[in-house]
Amino acid sequence: MSGAVETLAKGPVTLQVQGHLIVDTPGPGFTDITAPVARWVAQANCRTGLLVAFCRHTSASLTIQENADPDVRRDLMTALDRLAPRAAPYRHHLEGPDDMPAHIRTMLTDVSVQIPVQDGRPALGTWQGLYFVEHRDAPHRREILLHLTGT
Amino acid sequence: MSGAVETLAKGPVTLQVQGHLIVDTPGPGFTDITAPVARWVAQANCRTGLLVAFCRHTSASLTIQENADPDVRRDLMTALDRLAPRAAPYRHHLEGPDDMPAHIRTMLTDVSVQIPVQDGRPALGTWQGLYFVEHRDAPHRREILLHLTGT
Amino acid sequence: MSGAVETLAKGPVTLQVQGHLIVDTPGPGFTDITAPVARWVAQANCRTGLLVAFCRHTSASLTIQENADPDVRRDLMTALDRLAPRAAPYRHHLEGPDDMPAHIRTMLTDVSVQIPVQDGRPALGTWQGLYFVEHRDAPHRREILLHLTGT
Repeated sequence: MSGAVETLAKGPVTLQVQGHLIVDTPGPGFTDITAPVARWVAQANCRTGLLVAFCRHTSASLTIQENADPDVRRDLMTALDRLAPRAAPYRHHLEGPDDMPAHIRTMLTDVSVQIPVQDGRPALGTWQGLYFVEHRDAPHRREILLHLTGT
Repeated sequence: MSGAVETLAKGPVTLQVQGHLIVDTPGPGFTDITAPVARWVAQANCRTGLLVAFCRHTSASLTIQENADPDVRRDLMTALDRLAPRAAPYRHHLEGPDDMPAHIRTMLTDVSVQIPVQDGRPALGTWQGLYFVEHRDAPHRREILLHLTGT
Repeated sequence: MSGAVETLAKGPVTLQVQGHLIVDTPGPGFTDITAPVARWVAQANCRTGLLVAFCRHTSASLTIQENADPDVRRDLMTALDRLAPRAAPYRHHLEGPDDMPAHIRTMLTDVSVQIPVQDGRPALGTWQGLYFVEHRDAPHRREILLHLTGT
């Protein structure tokens, strides 16, 4: 059951800012990028707006997930491993047994995420963090683009 | 096979509006939020733009799905139950057997959705509805942020 | 490990453009729509901004995926077939055995995608392509809305 939408803010939209963030991953797993992204939004002097993060890769991805218990991220990796197993008869295997599962895991998670900005901060919920997810075995240097529209 | 993109509208972008919507869920399942969101867009006097809805939780999510046959939503819940089963050896279990599956189901569906606005309305297809999806067993009070940019 | 976000561009946001693209699908599989979408962005004279593509259907979807080896797309279809099998006891079956799996595959992939625009082009990574994914057996005429905000 839902009521009516309550308006929180209304005004002009005047500004856009783009940035990029390099993430050096140690292999499979989650890297918390909430803090550097929030710092950049604060420095951009955007009080109200919309933030988009975009991953420029097809074997790594983004997700917004639980930020309290690290076991949640371990269980999420196990779930992705079950949903996109390494031991399957893939046609595409020249880049190693971890490559095709990485593409599938990217498809099931997010290439981009959107977060409204309120009071100069990404308006994540209390238990939400923004994570970069590496799906390949080897360490990689990865690039995320950020786009901010607002005032 | 695709042709060329046809331009439908081109003009200034002047306005942003933010809102929030509370959804009281009765436990697992879909809540249709198409109507309250569309009413808010109409009241915002935005004729052409982009609507973003953002879920501030990690054990509930959003999706755009078939709006005609309620059996589709039942089958979607069954599919999520199979993809993220309750009976699995999760490390994270202190919050109950429904919590970790809820995080996985959130990862596989959408934390945010984007819908272009045309003629003052979210330009959903004929068979598309916007749904909030509760993944926890207990009733919850949930919060969705809305962001509208346009003219 | 991540460093700080580096700002690439900052300026006014003045323009929004909407377009639509028709895709005629031959049945299940991927249609590359990167080129027509990029041409439209170039013609819109938007140098810096954000592009959103939105699929107006619930049994077809969008994804950003590997653009080099066609075997990757074949493996992705096989993965979707395993995650959302045709042979399951669905309640919703009046529209054929391919319909409910198509809804599930749509839920697991993307109804909309967002791509920052830099130097007048969607800033996809080297190996990223934008794909429309048909999940039904029969050929379909499908509609994608595009929304561009920027300068």
